[in-house]
Amino acid sequence: MGIITLLTDFGTADGYPGVMHGVILSIHPEAVVVHVCHEIPPQDIQAGAFVVSTVYRYFPPHTIHVGVVDPGVGSERRAIAVRTNHGTFVGPDNGLLSYIFARETITEMVQLTNERYWLHPVSDTFHGRDIFAPVAAHLARGVALTELGPPIRDPIVFAVPTAETDEHGTIHGVVLHVDRFGNLTTSIPNELVQGRQARVHIGGHIVQRVRRTYAEVAEGELLALPGSSGYLEVAVRGGNAATLLGIGRHSKVQVATVGS
Amino acid sequence: MGIITLLTDFGTADGYPGVMHGVILSIHPEAVVVHVCHEIPPQDIQAGAFVVSTVYRYFPPHTIHVGVVDPGVGSERRAIAVRTNHGTFVGPDNGLLSYIFARETITEMVQLTNERYWLHPVSDTFHGRDIFAPVAAHLARGVALTELGPPIRDPIVFAVPTAETDEHGTIHGVVLHVDRFGNLTTSIPNELVQGRQARVHIGGHIVQRVRRTYAEVAEGELLALPGSSGYLEVAVRGGNAATLLGIGRHSKVQVATVGS
Amino acid sequence: MGIITLLTDFGTADGYPGVMHGVILSIHPEAVVVHVCHEIPPQDIQAGAFVVSTVYRYFPPHTIHVGVVDPGVGSERRAIAVRTNHGTFVGPDNGLLSYIFARETITEMVQLTNERYWLHPVSDTFHGRDIFAPVAAHLARGVALTELGPPIRDPIVFAVPTAETDEHGTIHGVVLHVDRFGNLTTSIPNELVQGRQARVHIGGHIVQRVRRTYAEVAEGELLALPGSSGYLEVAVRGGNAATLLGIGRHSKVQVATVGS
Repeated sequence: MGIITLLTDFGTADGYPGVMHGVILSIHPEAVVVHVCHEIPPQDIQAGAFVVSTVYRYFPPHTIHVGVVDPGVGSERRAIAVRTNHGTFVGPDNGLLSYIFARETITEMVQLTNERYWLHPVSDTFHGRDIFAPVAAHLARGVALTELGPPIRDPIVFAVPTAETDEHGTIHGVVLHVDRFGNLTTSIPNELVQGRQARVHIGGHIVQRVRRTYAEVAEGELLALPGSSGYLEVAVRGGNAATLLGIGRHSKVQVATVGS
Repeated sequence: MGIITLLTDFGTADGYPGVMHGVILSIHPEAVVVHVCHEIPPQDIQAGAFVVSTVYRYFPPHTIHVGVVDPGVGSERRAIAVRTNHGTFVGPDNGLLSYIFARETITEMVQLTNERYWLHPVSDTFHGRDIFAPVAAHLARGVALTELGPPIRDPIVFAVPTAETDEHGTIHGVVLHVDRFGNLTTSIPNELVQGRQARVHIGGHIVQRVRRTYAEVAEGELLALPGSSGYLEVAVRGGNAATLLGIGRHSKVQVATVGS
Repeated sequence: MGIITLLTDFGTADGYPGVMHGVILSIHPEAVVVHVCHEIPPQDIQAGAFVVSTVYRYFPPHTIHVGVVDPGVGSERRAIAVRTNHGTFVGPDNGLLSYIFARETITEMVQLTNERYWLHPVSDTFHGRDIFAPVAAHLARGVALTELGPPIRDPIVFAVPTAETDEHGTIHGVVLHVDRFGNLTTSIPNELVQGRQARVHIGGHIVQRVRRTYAEVAEGELLALPGSSGYLEVAVRGGNAATLLGIGRHSKVQVATVGS
């Protein structure tokens, strides 16, 4: 058994994800391949990193997660494999695993240099097929991480936005992600707002309360609620909050707790 | 063995369907998960219900079908599991199974209340992950339906449109579904028109005959033909009938049988 | 074991690919079904043929590849199964396998006529469900190709564009495919340009060099590079070459090798 997940910005209009699937089955016919998402906006490493962060914990810990959002493919950027207690991650060393580095303990980390586990000839533009998929298949078959290349200690990460509470008790965060419904996931953990009287300031609007479900407000109304990924979300019932507010990733959000 | 199908309105741009897949594999590593469709228009229960109706009969009868189009998630709407001789269905109690209730004999039906088979903590916005996926995985592993909660007898259904023949022999139906090609599936069963001289009135247009295949008419021409789902379809060869006629779901269609 | 790939123009907004998956599992519960691509532009046989050509070689040779881009469904067009040393192919006889015929040795080829291996009743509009999926499932279970119908020798093919070198050493090719990034794959094999000084003429523009990776040029800059499918590609870093150049499939491209 060996579960391998694939997350890319390749889209599904061409055969790229299918090619990766074929490469894996050619090396490890028993692998269970899960296509998590191929619609990350092209080359948007931060969007890819966020989606990775919402998925891996729901898979068994022995799962191999392949992420390919790779604007630097063919350049000097390194390829890496990273082991944690909640999954093993394979992909380019470009920040795509920033949330993993911020949240998990790394037990092993190597640069992928051992060409014995790659597909040859290696193209300069499709390492998903020629490096990441075959490496994942070999890992799922039981090849040791240390076989794949030398250890490294300095992966590339971007700063994962967090939330800060100021001296007035106001919580300051940013929008981490905009999903396809236009829902805005912020960097403010649910725990900081759940069960409290709170007023949310975002995009020049004020949301007077944190709700529990969409059904508590009218169609078209802006609301804030604890999100399924563990962070406060701002949404419009039956609508698109990103469009309504005219904001996106990195936009600021404040929560003022009221009289408590 | 255990086949589980997933149908949602989550889209594939985020990781939601992958998360459900991971939850299932974490509970039941041998499950075969089929992603039937994640592009139901957001919160469009009727579109989801129609697509469910075209799919389930082609899977083995022991298949667990999970459907999540769930505008009332987190509210008082119930969650249910429904067993028939052609599949077991898991999802919100909101009409998504209306075609199943209209066409199949229900052998068992329960409200999902036994939190032992859920993922904790249960969010208020993503029951696909926290209730429906884990319940389906447990069912596929062999847990009895009656373990999941108490029996119910009053599920929510919407009236499934049918076809009526009036005293002049004219058949009256409506458009049930518009697919991505703009093909219109009506509520008129193929049997009522197949092999007969028939004239179809729809959207102010008249289609003079019921054809057998697209290839019988010219590019861009409107045609009516027996659809693959068992119901009369109206289409444009190489074009979009919904756009051409300016109509959609619930629009009326009449078929006048001619001289027979 | 039995791997079956599916490639269609059905889209993923309706349940059609899921239905094919269900039909296969009903006949052959152990089948591994890979959804390669369902976003071929509707009825675009040439686009489908190109994507098929980039995928099959990465799967194990015993894989069954089902391709359904089928504007003539229900007409007199034949259905075929074609065996090669790099996969078995099932689909309509309409040119979809043109690259396979151009590049592989055919070891067996039959017309699908044996209705015993079909789903009944056979619709006139969804042979993916009623003929191609069940035939693939039976093949994966071990049914002999010759069981499916009589041999044929005259499949429909379109001419696969190639590259010609003229008396001045200029290589003449065309655009074979435009992917979702707007990258243009040409009919000029990488070997003809790799490691040479070469100038690429395309859409009224001149690209002065063949690069190795996207990272060698600036954001927004047009470049030519050896493509992952084995053919010269023209792209814009972080942009869309098809849009920038205003060209598409069949557009001409010339490569002048310089001073060598």
